[in-house]
Amino acid sequence: MIKPELNCDLGESFGIFSIGNDQEILPFVDAINIACGFHAGDPHTMKQTIQLAKQHNVHIGAHPGFQDIQGFGRRRINLSSEEVYDLVLYQIGALYGFTKVEDVTLHHVKPHGALYNIASSDKEIALAIAQAVYDFDKSLILYGLANSFITRAGEQIGLKVAHEVFADRTYQSNGTLTDRTSENAVIHDLDRSMQQVEEMMKTGHVTSIDGQKIPIQADTICVHSDTTKALTYVKHLKQFITQLN
Amino acid sequence: MIKPELNCDLGESFGIFSIGNDQEILPFVDAINIACGFHAGDPHTMKQTIQLAKQHNVHIGAHPGFQDIQGFGRRRINLSSEEVYDLVLYQIGALYGFTKVEDVTLHHVKPHGALYNIASSDKEIALAIAQAVYDFDKSLILYGLANSFITRAGEQIGLKVAHEVFADRTYQSNGTLTDRTSENAVIHDLDRSMQQVEEMMKTGHVTSIDGQKIPIQADTICVHSDTTKALTYVKHLKQFITQLN
Amino acid sequence: MIKPELNCDLGESFGIFSIGNDQEILPFVDAINIACGFHAGDPHTMKQTIQLAKQHNVHIGAHPGFQDIQGFGRRRINLSSEEVYDLVLYQIGALYGFTKVEDVTLHHVKPHGALYNIASSDKEIALAIAQAVYDFDKSLILYGLANSFITRAGEQIGLKVAHEVFADRTYQSNGTLTDRTSENAVIHDLDRSMQQVEEMMKTGHVTSIDGQKIPIQADTICVHSDTTKALTYVKHLKQFITQLN
Amino acid sequence: MIKPELNCDLGESFGIFSIGNDQEILPFVDAINIACGFHAGDPHTMKQTIQLAKQHNVHIGAHPGFQDIQGFGRRRINLSSEEVYDLVLYQIGALYGFTKVEDVTLHHVKPHGALYNIASSDKEIALAIAQAVYDFDKSLILYGLANSFITRAGEQIGLKVAHEVFADRTYQSNGTLTDRTSENAVIHDLDRSMQQVEEMMKTGHVTSIDGQKIPIQADTICVHSDTTKALTYVKHLKQFITQLN
Repeated sequence: MIKPELNCDLGESFGIFSIGNDQEILPFVDAINIACGFHAGDPHTMKQTIQLAKQHNVHIGAHPGFQDIQGFGRRRINLSSEEVYDLVLYQIGALYGFTKVEDVTLHHVKPHGALYNIASSDKEIALAIAQAVYDFDKSLILYGLANSFITRAGEQIGLKVAHEVFADRTYQSNGTLTDRTSENAVIHDLDRSMQQVEEMMKTGHVTSIDGQKIPIQADTICVHSDTTKALTYVKHLKQFITQLN
Repeated sequence: MIKPELNCDLGESFGIFSIGNDQEILPFVDAINIACGFHAGDPHTMKQTIQLAKQHNVHIGAHPGFQDIQGFGRRRINLSSEEVYDLVLYQIGALYGFTKVEDVTLHHVKPHGALYNIASSDKEIALAIAQAVYDFDKSLILYGLANSFITRAGEQIGLKVAHEVFADRTYQSNGTLTDRTSENAVIHDLDRSMQQVEEMMKTGHVTSIDGQKIPIQADTICVHSDTTKALTYVKHLKQFITQLN
Repeated sequence: MIKPELNCDLGESFGIFSIGNDQEILPFVDAINIACGFHAGDPHTMKQTIQLAKQHNVHIGAHPGFQDIQGFGRRRINLSSEEVYDLVLYQIGALYGFTKVEDVTLHHVKPHGALYNIASSDKEIALAIAQAVYDFDKSLILYGLANSFITRAGEQIGLKVAHEVFADRTYQSNGTLTDRTSENAVIHDLDRSMQQVEEMMKTGHVTSIDGQKIPIQADTICVHSDTTKALTYVKHLKQFITQLN
Repeated sequence: MIKPELNCDLGESFGIFSIGNDQEILPFVDAINIACGFHAGDPHTMKQTIQLAKQHNVHIGAHPGFQDIQGFGRRRINLSSEEVYDLVLYQIGALYGFTKVEDVTLHHVKPHGALYNIASSDKEIALAIAQAVYDFDKSLILYGLANSFITRAGEQIGLKVAHEVFADRTYQSNGTLTDRTSENAVIHDLDRSMQQVEEMMKTGHVTSIDGQKIPIQADTICVHSDTTKALTYVKHLKQFITQLN
């Protein structure tokens, strides 16, 4: 049984606009995805977040998103695949600069928000992102939704990929996440959430909302840091995974 | 007699807003400074400009500026020296990404517009810029106004610097450029402009507007590409330097 | 026979990035649509364009678009209808300020680019735009694609609307424009273009690409100003309409 | 004895980035200054803040600032006085749109942050701001630092002005505020702060840090809403003023 790591989006403050509990979450996660200034983050926040990550010895990833601070990168912007390639490359480079001066390794890239969602379902955009990552540095790991176009695109291009799963989201029988607009999209019950993680880890499957066993590779679990409740959840999840065997 | 190179700001288009004659000027210059998306330029333009530069085999430099597309980086924004460090590092990294995928070398960094001017006259800001360049890659060359704080800061920190001079601007007896608001700031006469270049190259001095001989190191001459007149000027200047001996 | 007016998008420069031939086109058009700073235009350009319009005594309209200077408002951004309402209202107000100090009347509102296209085909977004216009000032005229959701939304809400037609674009049998990606979307032949205008004016119909007669109300014709060719075209079109009877 | 009103900056959230305690502070203030989207605020936040203000029946003002969300309008940007005129007018118009649809009156304008500071000390910029306010609507009240260029500019141009004072800041003998970089700039002691307010109200003077009595007109007191401590302070101040006689 391979234990999945926990990854978390950090460095999402912007100027005086502060969000997240970056310091509190860091001891409990293995990898962080740092906003690169387009949907959140700014040069100073990027530097500080890398310095924090260095202290906690976690894997550092770039978290490129659409250029839309106001919408926090959650609103889809219709870009061509070439525009996406350029957008992603620009942001990887920008974050790379700060990893270089802090003498840490850039470990992975994970698209953010609406870009993450499009990358999961649009083959051309998925390939554009994977190509940008590969062209910048083919040893980078591409993080993306398990069983989706982005992880397939990464594998096809020759990148190492990390299949991301969710502990508190339900799955459809086609392997995708239940849309957030559905009532049963989120698993609110803590025990059921832990059971889902345990099933993924022990069987390599997840049970979809209509009862089917879907094969899934749980390399990394996405967790959030922005509320006290989220923090409590992460601590619980971390402990749960650690004691599993 | 060392012949100065010619450098030019390129890649200053932004989305559909197109400026400059990038293709026309490239055969006549030795080094270009590429806008990094903060005062001009966008990811796509950055990539295209690097591809063009590669064809013409010119030196590629990052041209970081204040974050102000509307003001084209010409309006001073009061930033702390740490903010400037972060601003410059972010932009160098962003451009570096595109040089990496195009397999060309990032050769130098030259601050743009208001940032260039502040770097010339403010010691702390000058040091912040030089430090960002050095921390990213100490083999990069720092371009800045000859006889100013920025070139001194670069040398002090341990960078190779290129002293930039102007063929069509007059100099004060303290070695600085005559302010653009003064009537005699610009040398409109072509012959007088060529004489100034010749004097710099042959004697290592420039004659200030009040007749003093000022020591000046002419490593690189700044030229413009944005008008037909500018293009004609550059061709003339290039020819003039080539035939000097 | 009612003669349609000509309308043109103006004030699309941004800072030092200058586009369009605003001065040249003004004598030949009846109404202009002024960019409001979100997809193009800036406060200074808005003021100047209104001053120019005042001299030429043309109708002044607000031209709100998505907040995307780099993409010139041509890239769709997924906004809720409430976000569109707020976006449009903000931009109308911003332009209104300049009409007020210049003592001219704000005459109409026409959505720009991707927002124009969505307004033509999405009922909810069309209603949000119409409502914002109505709530700001119900005497404003809403300009939009003839035979589309936006003109219907305006009429439903109680606004006066101007049905916009195109002289150089072909129409589908369902009354919509042929998509620009199609080969025969644009009418390149000047005579055929004038015939289309004449047909619309004299018969109240346009002949679709598959030969059907589609009812169409030609209140206003959209023309462009950004090239020399466009200018020549507008002069020809203006003359053609004037001599028709 | 005229009792000064309390005014507060509100509507400073930006997209998902939420700051301030707008709901909690509203019952205790008389006037609010709403960010207009340039240094903070966005169209949706502007509309919501006006709706809140309407419920609480407080005076609504526009709070224009430099275009710098990241720096929250606190970093000086070197603009010409014409650029400032255009900047301020654009923002007043944008906010006006929302007051119009909500059927409330736009009552005043108060510059924000770095623009407020420049307006206090730079005569030309002060006049540009006052002129923009006057040209938009000469019945608007201009809020600005008591004893400064901005209040003088307003009076000179023919606007009603509100002299703003600070309860928790010390004054210099020339009537200006002690710079925030000085140790004794802020009055941390609650009682001393209330005494300063009482002195201003009862005598029309404030005692400067070197013991001089400076004439000051306390029309409005600036309070903050962004911390729990700030809220407690405002409630205390409100009660203190109410019981004074």
